[in-house]
Amino acid sequence: MVVLGCTGSIGVNTLAIAKKFALDVEVLVCGKNIKLLNEQLKEFNPKVVVISDADDIPSVNHSNVFAGEENILKAIEDSKSELVVNALVGFMGLRPTLKAIQSDKKIALANKESLVACGNFIDSSKIQPIDSEHFGLWYLLQDRPVKKMIITASGGAFRDWDIEKLHGATLADTQKHPNWSMGQKITIDSATMVNKMFELLEARWLFGEGKYDAIIETKSLIHALIDFKDGSTTAHFAHANMQLPISYAIDAKMDASILKHIDLLEVASLEFRKIEQERYPVWQIKNELLNNPNRGVVINAANEVAIEKFINKEIGFMDIHKTILDAYEAYDIEPKNVDDVFAIDAKIRKELRR
Amino acid sequence: MVVLGCTGSIGVNTLAIAKKFALDVEVLVCGKNIKLLNEQLKEFNPKVVVISDADDIPSVNHSNVFAGEENILKAIEDSKSELVVNALVGFMGLRPTLKAIQSDKKIALANKESLVACGNFIDSSKIQPIDSEHFGLWYLLQDRPVKKMIITASGGAFRDWDIEKLHGATLADTQKHPNWSMGQKITIDSATMVNKMFELLEARWLFGEGKYDAIIETKSLIHALIDFKDGSTTAHFAHANMQLPISYAIDAKMDASILKHIDLLEVASLEFRKIEQERYPVWQIKNELLNNPNRGVVINAANEVAIEKFINKEIGFMDIHKTILDAYEAYDIEPKNVDDVFAIDAKIRKELRR
Repeated sequence: MVVLGCTGSIGVNTLAIAKKFALDVEVLVCGKNIKLLNEQLKEFNPKVVVISDADDIPSVNHSNVFAGEENILKAIEDSKSELVVNALVGFMGLRPTLKAIQSDKKIALANKESLVACGNFIDSSKIQPIDSEHFGLWYLLQDRPVKKMIITASGGAFRDWDIEKLHGATLADTQKHPNWSMGQKITIDSATMVNKMFELLEARWLFGEGKYDAIIETKSLIHALIDFKDGSTTAHFAHANMQLPISYAIDAKMDASILKHIDLLEVASLEFRKIEQERYPVWQIKNELLNNPNRGVVINAANEVAIEKFINKEIGFMDIHKTILDAYEAYDIEPKNVDDVFAIDAKIRKELRR
Repeated sequence: MVVLGCTGSIGVNTLAIAKKFALDVEVLVCGKNIKLLNEQLKEFNPKVVVISDADDIPSVNHSNVFAGEENILKAIEDSKSELVVNALVGFMGLRPTLKAIQSDKKIALANKESLVACGNFIDSSKIQPIDSEHFGLWYLLQDRPVKKMIITASGGAFRDWDIEKLHGATLADTQKHPNWSMGQKITIDSATMVNKMFELLEARWLFGEGKYDAIIETKSLIHALIDFKDGSTTAHFAHANMQLPISYAIDAKMDASILKHIDLLEVASLEFRKIEQERYPVWQIKNELLNNPNRGVVINAANEVAIEKFINKEIGFMDIHKTILDAYEAYDIEPKNVDDVFAIDAKIRKELRR
């Protein structure tokens, strides 16, 4: 397989599963964590390695190391693997997804921005989501009429904060996720609830038109629920470890024990909360966005620029919401094709960065 | 269809579904509620009616009324219906189940004692359970390896009582079910947790050998959970209205809206508790019984006699547990065939009634 983003938590879990099932790892791609990469190289001995920065090439213990996006795309194209695990972060994950589809590979997709920005032009039949929520929906779907698909949110770092204080929230505050540790960008997206809006958009592209919603389940043990037409609701519970969806991306007829079960007696209680627009202002465009999913590229570009500015202390935390909502209003445009996606993204970034 | 126990809550729900789907009701069978029966006769106009007591025949507004068990069996045998809904209470529901199987009919089974006492001699492929728990398990089962099936209990009338006070609990106390209203006997069985032990035995006969367990979910909104081998757990949530399982007994490819969904935001929280042996002493033989499911007939006879005695104030509430545990120890016997089931049942009843 080809693993894009091998040193992040999803990459690490992917390699754990590759080891468990003795799968061949052909290409490893990562950013700046050369120390962990070198450990992985010893264990998995891939044919090709690609990193972000050419300056780091001498530090990598491998004879076939390249740097930069073009080389990621080339490595995908040249690879013999049938599966590409895309765990890159942000819009930069889109071109590799498109390249993998062109190269007729199956994609285990953890990069949310691919579908958010470009869902209309991606063949979702080639994609197996690596994400507790979409995996849960996929797991629960049966040959029965569905009324609504529901995913859960943790509520992020600020779910219990005094709303008045959110304006002053710092980058360090956003990183205090209540239930687990992830990368910086997705943890900010979790605090704003943008992450959950993106996941609803992804669900829309993966599972088609229909009703989608999200609620907060504070312990993050339930990831997805389906309301069936008959009045039944089913729920998917699991420890939030990506080894489970990754295993199914490798083999949809998984017959192995992957995770320990959740012990509900130990859990003792579960709590459900509404996603309040006051605390999560972007939530007010959730339904409109689901009805106009092509506008995901606008939201994504605005979100990435707003996060840059927030990290650089140019704007406050609640301004991330404002940037997104303003951009959604200002840019009432939908891409007609893949080139349009990149053009719209570039235009919005340029104008918002001014 | 043939409806046995038409005036109880399951019978009433069955007729509501018969009306919804315009199904023919051929035979109605009930006990002493002649007033409700007469209302049902006006609406459904069955060919044959059977009641418990011959003295009540003149009060029934129908030209074809019979009384007693033999006539129930004859009505099943003579009927043209493909489906028999058996919502009779207690061991007396067994012969009608056996007769329906002999007559090659499908059985929508709410009578728990049929499988508890005689599961080894009943072809479970003819049975569709009408019970939130077994329906839930059936609904959740997919073509995936199962590790454990779990059903939930409300905990019954005494789940929050001081354990010391249980000895003095009265019949009226047992009837204060925390979540709903059912018949007298099953509400006592709910307070002792015998009902849940019986449901586990039924599950064992319906779904085969494997791991089965139960936990308390205090709001009775989750009815069943499955731990799959991969580490996923799925749960079935629904309002506890038997119209849902009854609909599926009529048509396994149900494509209609039957119940309103549960709104988890309204529910707000869920609580899970262990079934404690101190509060529910019969629970100590749960695993042994599941490993020796043929001994269900012993437990059932002891339970029915103990309940009679408790209602007649001959024994206290906690003596129901003692009667069952003593009988389980004293009668280490398993039926070899159906006749044996009736012989063992009769023997135990006779001896325990002394």
